[in-house]
Amino acid sequence: MKYLLVLLLAGLTSSAQIQKEQLNLMPWPQSVVLNEGNFALTKNFKVNITGNPNPRIFGGVTRFLRRLDGRTGIFFEQGFIQKLNEVPTAEVQINCTKSGKIGLYEDESYHLDIKQNRITINATSDLGALHALETLLQMLQNNSTSFYFPNAQISDFPRFTWRGLMIDAARHFQPVDVIKRNIDALAAMKMNVFHWHLVDDQGWRIEMKKHKKLIELASDGEYYTQEEIKNIVKYADERGILIVPEIDVPGHGSSILTAYPEIGSKVMTINGGTQEKNIQGTAIATYGIERNAGIFSPTLDPSNPKTYQLLSEIFDEVCPLFPGSYFHIGGDENEGKDWDANPKIQEFKKKNKLATNHELQTYFTMQLVPMLKKHGKQLMGWEEILTKNMSKEAIIHSWRGPNEGVAPGQSLVDAVKKGYKTVLSNGYYIDLMYPVESHYLNDPMPKGADLSAEEKARILGGEATMWTELATPTTLDSRVWPRTAAIAERLWSAEDVKDVANMRKRLETVSFRLEELGLTHIRNRAVILRNIANNQNIKSLNEFSNVCEPLKGYTRNKGGTEYQMYSPLTLFADACTPDAKDALAFDEAVTKYLANKTPENKTRIIGFFNKWIAVNKGLIELSANAPLVQALLPLSKKLTDASQELLFVLDNKSTLKSEDLKNLIEQCNTKEHADVELAVYNSLKKLI
Amino acid sequence: MKYLLVLLLAGLTSSAQIQKEQLNLMPWPQSVVLNEGNFALTKNFKVNITGNPNPRIFGGVTRFLRRLDGRTGIFFEQGFIQKLNEVPTAEVQINCTKSGKIGLYEDESYHLDIKQNRITINATSDLGALHALETLLQMLQNNSTSFYFPNAQISDFPRFTWRGLMIDAARHFQPVDVIKRNIDALAAMKMNVFHWHLVDDQGWRIEMKKHKKLIELASDGEYYTQEEIKNIVKYADERGILIVPEIDVPGHGSSILTAYPEIGSKVMTINGGTQEKNIQGTAIATYGIERNAGIFSPTLDPSNPKTYQLLSEIFDEVCPLFPGSYFHIGGDENEGKDWDANPKIQEFKKKNKLATNHELQTYFTMQLVPMLKKHGKQLMGWEEILTKNMSKEAIIHSWRGPNEGVAPGQSLVDAVKKGYKTVLSNGYYIDLMYPVESHYLNDPMPKGADLSAEEKARILGGEATMWTELATPTTLDSRVWPRTAAIAERLWSAEDVKDVANMRKRLETVSFRLEELGLTHIRNRAVILRNIANNQNIKSLNEFSNVCEPLKGYTRNKGGTEYQMYSPLTLFADACTPDAKDALAFDEAVTKYLANKTPENKTRIIGFFNKWIAVNKGLIELSANAPLVQALLPLSKKLTDASQELLFVLDNKSTLKSEDLKNLIEQCNTKEHADVELAVYNSLKKLI
Repeated sequence: MKYLLVLLLAGLTSSAQIQKEQLNLMPWPQSVVLNEGNFALTKNFKVNITGNPNPRIFGGVTRFLRRLDGRTGIFFEQGFIQKLNEVPTAEVQINCTKSGKIGLYEDESYHLDIKQNRITINATSDLGALHALETLLQMLQNNSTSFYFPNAQISDFPRFTWRGLMIDAARHFQPVDVIKRNIDALAAMKMNVFHWHLVDDQGWRIEMKKHKKLIELASDGEYYTQEEIKNIVKYADERGILIVPEIDVPGHGSSILTAYPEIGSKVMTINGGTQEKNIQGTAIATYGIERNAGIFSPTLDPSNPKTYQLLSEIFDEVCPLFPGSYFHIGGDENEGKDWDANPKIQEFKKKNKLATNHELQTYFTMQLVPMLKKHGKQLMGWEEILTKNMSKEAIIHSWRGPNEGVAPGQSLVDAVKKGYKTVLSNGYYIDLMYPVESHYLNDPMPKGADLSAEEKARILGGEATMWTELATPTTLDSRVWPRTAAIAERLWSAEDVKDVANMRKRLETVSFRLEELGLTHIRNRAVILRNIANNQNIKSLNEFSNVCEPLKGYTRNKGGTEYQMYSPLTLFADACTPDAKDALAFDEAVTKYLANKTPENKTRIIGFFNKWIAVNKGLIELSANAPLVQALLPLSKKLTDASQELLFVLDNKSTLKSEDLKNLIEQCNTKEHADVELAVYNSLKKLI
Repeated sequence: MKYLLVLLLAGLTSSAQIQKEQLNLMPWPQSVVLNEGNFALTKNFKVNITGNPNPRIFGGVTRFLRRLDGRTGIFFEQGFIQKLNEVPTAEVQINCTKSGKIGLYEDESYHLDIKQNRITINATSDLGALHALETLLQMLQNNSTSFYFPNAQISDFPRFTWRGLMIDAARHFQPVDVIKRNIDALAAMKMNVFHWHLVDDQGWRIEMKKHKKLIELASDGEYYTQEEIKNIVKYADERGILIVPEIDVPGHGSSILTAYPEIGSKVMTINGGTQEKNIQGTAIATYGIERNAGIFSPTLDPSNPKTYQLLSEIFDEVCPLFPGSYFHIGGDENEGKDWDANPKIQEFKKKNKLATNHELQTYFTMQLVPMLKKHGKQLMGWEEILTKNMSKEAIIHSWRGPNEGVAPGQSLVDAVKKGYKTVLSNGYYIDLMYPVESHYLNDPMPKGADLSAEEKARILGGEATMWTELATPTTLDSRVWPRTAAIAERLWSAEDVKDVANMRKRLETVSFRLEELGLTHIRNRAVILRNIANNQNIKSLNEFSNVCEPLKGYTRNKGGTEYQMYSPLTLFADACTPDAKDALAFDEAVTKYLANKTPENKTRIIGFFNKWIAVNKGLIELSANAPLVQALLPLSKKLTDASQELLFVLDNKSTLKSEDLKNLIEQCNTKEHADVELAVYNSLKKLI
């Protein structure tokens, strides 16, 4: 009891005034002022809502209470909030002037005022109030015994109006629960657009009541029912998120053409008279759901009236499921091979004076504009749709960069100069496993492009894109989070908020907190490692995963045929993530040591080497009963060999020639093992 | 390379003939014969299906391939299986004579024959073939470099036809993904009934299109849409699982009466003339969704014709959602308080010559029989429905035992003697946190009851019941699994398969393998502990959770009001489980030491004590920045104090008086901290 008292006092006295640098807010608000004093959390904590908000705020506050409950274990009395002004005397008062409209350009600003006995949230719309609640959750502090909010005044609003995440549900189907928890995470990061990539070569994912073949033949039974889609749209609406659906045409057409081969562009030579002939006298090609990754030739036939009839009917069925004002029609990566080889299409081009395949694609895309307009939707497409005759109402989605042989985000500048609105995704390809820093410093507003205010205003914002050739429902979250939180900050916060070290520090807490929303990015690492370890202790594997990163860019699954879309991806690379934890810590230690060779700094480095030598020993032991560990041993041996020699180097006891030492380290610069690379290679090199 | 070769050879030579005792099959098959030799897995592994199975086998085999893929990382070529005889030359051949019917008494037997280059599965129905595939997955073995199946002949069939799990979706709503993954686990354990408790005081969980009030007023927005229900029924059917829905009446009626108070039994005294009067001149009572746990008085009025009209309409809407032949109407825990206090109901009893409330309830229940029969459904209810006038077609669900003041499973014997079919749940209440052993040794066939063969045949089987007053979607799986796997074995395997130690050994692997189905029973422990640790290292917390168990029986949440149904339950007790891992290991070590006081045996014990002393230190450190750890410190201190003294005892250096030592150990026999108990108390006591 005496002991408890001591602790209690220690707790009370440790609620010292918190400094701004200690807050783990993300995205960082436009203005934060900290004041002396705290708001203490008690079981009687209650929230009251006034004004004219959309009813979504009731659910929003109820969820806020439960999350705060879960963190603190206080378990507040207040249960479900159902109406305005339920508890006029509540310590937390939320006032919203009007009902927030889901979409672009809505007022999402808020003022959050935390005082000793009162928290006030004022927002124009409930969307702003929802953001304020997320900020409040991030403000939570604790001493050793209790939880509190530091007194503060926060004023906040977004820099860009389009702050999105795309998830590809075509390559690897992502079930409803995966989508929902990611929508929760978007809301927590104050993002407001979920772009749902629903159709690609590898599958059609929307239940169709009129065109059932799309489901029966082109989905493998993996699709969202229309009710599930409506349910997700509602779920997103309740969290302030706009959904932008995508049906990718005219390229990426394998799944559509599996169901409707008669609108494909491929010409087949008839070798006999056994196949059914179409009116051109050529056979209708056969298509199949694509099982590999890559860019494929199946493309819709832009010269065939049936193509437009089908698409029009499809939009008539799909558009009403999505109340938002935007519809993404893809339009990317159409290489036109099948168009070039089809005499009928060539003739059509000539007849319509379309000089290039690009012009032909614009012709095609322009037919879709009225089909969407009929349902009140504006067309959006990947940057390839940007040609001279494209409607100025179309939104250009800028995605290509050096990997596609063009300047990064060049299309963004082109688009706004030509009068188009645009959204940036180049630099936000989170599926490619690049470090968070690269995404964080990638600003939608191009430097030195000399844009007018009007042109700048056409840059709506940005969108992280999560393609899923290599991501399953088990691994998706760890590919999206926490890096997307840094992108969220880029899109919300002031341009000058860009201190990478500070962002990293905050991101660690933000990532942990995302777990309370059901995100699996932390927990599923152990699941994959347990399987690899064959249910033996995963300590060594886990530590090894802390210095390994999945191959970056398009270097994993080269050629797209090593893994099929139905391969479950339960390998070591699937447990690893960018920004390997120990690699960052090691690099910091090396930098410190090189700047100042104190015994303490040396000891830290030695600690890493000894750990990796132990990891190697641990992996060898594991491998005796775990075949999946075998693939890691050569890589782990390379790191161990380098570590052992560098231990000598640190003590000036290495007997290796400089060249041999260099070669030893260079061994660690490899992409040949288990689809991962050693993220410590560059830091190791610094030591020799 | 040399190193790898050595490993490779070690691998090859280590595929020694496996022994039966090494297999981790569960439920244990009726007959297993192991033969020399193995079937080696390769990328070319393929399955072929012949005969006349239900098409569910195609999905079943496809899922089988993906699970084997995921474990082995081999990633087979074969993708989606869509029709019979696709690959006549495949190494795995499955033949089924007929399409399996979901329900009781279906032939679920199978023969599995594993030979060097050929695996053959023969089953009457695809349901048997699905079971065979689960057995085959459990047969998977590995050496250090590769995976294989040992040659074997297995013949198998279930002992009982009803092998069920009930999940209560009313107290804490359990979303679709939770239900689905638990259905997957049921199928993996060869269980065949999912009993879905959909209505209780705390909520109505079925979308109603005609009686919308049940959803609008009595669900808090947490319910299954009819499409979701149909989708789950289909999902279960594909896995061979029958769904038995439950609407609990006439007691447990708070949610129904929140929507339709006019059919409630409560009488309200009118104090003034301001309330709307009903025809009896009494006011209609108000009801609310219940937020606490317990037994409550709201009960449907059996004397009111409107009650039957509403129930009839409800069954008309709900029954068609469930194709199975059984409908559970609850019927439990009606204490009749409101009936006794209602003069109109008393009058009704008299008029209908119903001597007791039990007879009145039978009258009520008998009205439901034809409502269900109309939809081809047989009525099932908790044992309280068993009274002299109950229809012999009703299935009696035996649940009460010593806790309710009756002999365990007495109603089971009563029921079969009176000619009723029955299912046992007494002894399978997995929500009460008892050790797996107690459930495992609880046989549906009562000992010494002297039943005829005919009477025995009326014992259909058993059902694990997972009530969710204290289980959320985050924790549910860890309450259900792995213990339900042991119940599955009790219900499937031969009566004499009951070696607890052997079961425990197999259960460890089975539990690990359940993770591949998405079950969260292992992974979510770390999630809860990370939250408690406030994102600090969870090592100490995790180790402490290995000796703590949640309070058993009805001792947690005493009175039912400490936690509300909307409390998120993120406490230490929610991370702990029965059968605490280190407690079992410690008890084994103590037993060994006491039998033979070798230095080695002593060292093991000392190891535990030192670990717990370190844990205590670790928890104190954590608590400086984690308020939720505070509640654990007094308990951890008790274990540390005992450990420290017992270290002296082991060396004969204790200076404590025998009484004081006893008291010190007795300190560990406490239920006062953090809703858990120290699972090592009994073993500690053995040492003094």
